[in-house]
Amino acid sequence: MAMIRNHSYLVNGSFEQTISVSDRGFTYGDGVFRTMKMHNGLPVNWPFHYQKLVADCAAIGIVCPSAELLMGDLQKLFKKELFSDDLIQVAKIVITRGEGERGYAPPTITIPTRVVIKSGFPHYEASNYNKGVQLHVCDIRLAAQTKLAGIKHLNRLENVLARMEWREDFIFDGLLLDSSGNVIECTMSNVFARFGSELVTPDLSVCGVSGITRQHILGLGGVLDLNILVQTLTLDELLQADEVIICNSLFGAFQVTKINNKIWPQQDLAAKIRNIVAND
Amino acid sequence: MAMIRNHSYLVNGSFEQTISVSDRGFTYGDGVFRTMKMHNGLPVNWPFHYQKLVADCAAIGIVCPSAELLMGDLQKLFKKELFSDDLIQVAKIVITRGEGERGYAPPTITIPTRVVIKSGFPHYEASNYNKGVQLHVCDIRLAAQTKLAGIKHLNRLENVLARMEWREDFIFDGLLLDSSGNVIECTMSNVFARFGSELVTPDLSVCGVSGITRQHILGLGGVLDLNILVQTLTLDELLQADEVIICNSLFGAFQVTKINNKIWPQQDLAAKIRNIVAND
Repeated sequence: MAMIRNHSYLVNGSFEQTISVSDRGFTYGDGVFRTMKMHNGLPVNWPFHYQKLVADCAAIGIVCPSAELLMGDLQKLFKKELFSDDLIQVAKIVITRGEGERGYAPPTITIPTRVVIKSGFPHYEASNYNKGVQLHVCDIRLAAQTKLAGIKHLNRLENVLARMEWREDFIFDGLLLDSSGNVIECTMSNVFARFGSELVTPDLSVCGVSGITRQHILGLGGVLDLNILVQTLTLDELLQADEVIICNSLFGAFQVTKINNKIWPQQDLAAKIRNIVAND
Repeated sequence: MAMIRNHSYLVNGSFEQTISVSDRGFTYGDGVFRTMKMHNGLPVNWPFHYQKLVADCAAIGIVCPSAELLMGDLQKLFKKELFSDDLIQVAKIVITRGEGERGYAPPTITIPTRVVIKSGFPHYEASNYNKGVQLHVCDIRLAAQTKLAGIKHLNRLENVLARMEWREDFIFDGLLLDSSGNVIECTMSNVFARFGSELVTPDLSVCGVSGITRQHILGLGGVLDLNILVQTLTLDELLQADEVIICNSLFGAFQVTKINNKIWPQQDLAAKIRNIVAND
């Protein structure tokens, strides 16, 4: 079993890098996860992340481990990074329903499995920050499943297939639409489109992942002096926007400069949001 | 890590029971699987199973390990069961895209992970064979995703949530409909409905898992003296059928005796099919 470069792992609080093949996270994708920016060994926006983890677990009937337990795991795994000098890394937390026998019915008593993975911060080009990013419009359409919509669960084959659609380095992320052609999100980020003083983000009640940075931005209407709306947004409408940004927990926000033949000039909303969400 | 009772495991040909937490089968459900009946240490209907494994892998861009390699794994794991006296067990084969760094993009070079799990044959009541089984109509509706329809992939949260809808022992399986109310399948089996001399099974081109026993039955029209059709089937239509059966690789076929308030008298199609698919 090859050790992935620069990663380290904690499984149920122990320094292990494997889980049982009977873990329902492996057999059915029966679990949820979070990807978080770590600053000097501490999770950025932890209250948002933990709240989302609890909600996502609850949505599929898993009792989320306590915040103390997970924070203890993070501190154990990032111990030597505490009090670093401005060190940025990534922590991924995976919570599964735990081990089970063959068959979809969960065991009567389940003990959730918790996995924490430490990895280096991804390399983003300076131009991503200074100028912006280009998106590919994915061919695969997101399926409508209200019982799983919004949840960051482990059933991510749609994202995998979407990400396999392009190999060009100049494409930063892929825009995902639903079967009606409405914009939902990107493979690893959420989308906002500004029309004048209105900032619109797609409704995620039937598909998509509701990220914590999106959640964070939804509360920034006053600060940004924008009227923030959650509503249906077609691709054509998106291409008419004055400004489009994508966001996630790692890079904060980037402006979108190009989708298909549409090009947007550089503007300042992404930088403004990046600054706020990184420092709240 | 608790050892699941009566299971034994082979990971990439070695007697291990764990996989890396960086395996994409765990992180994204990025893989496929098969559940097979083993008779005296040998897989029943292996050509059907291997062909399906290759097709399912190909559908998500994984190169399936060779039949020789997988058969070698099965022989290694079921060595002491070979030449038993009518011993029935279960083998599950899982193929994933292999290990990967954080992020949806698969590595340039991937080595698929193969897991083989041996377990005891499930206990079915004698009445399941002699009389039939009762189904629950699931509340969750299957999402429409043509790129994943038919594939037995590791993204099985819909099945998990569906199976969590009932706890009554007298319910054998749950009937799954699509968002339009069409019958698709059950959580662990496919469905056929007989109307006179026509045997109808739902179209699985937008959702559902196309099992090998269903595939097998589709070729039995002549033997059964029935005209077999793949078409849309509403729940109301299903409830009007003369006879309903469900099928999978383990139990073969069982007659459905009750769905909601509809009760069917015992008939002989399930037993006939069970006899054929077990001995072909």
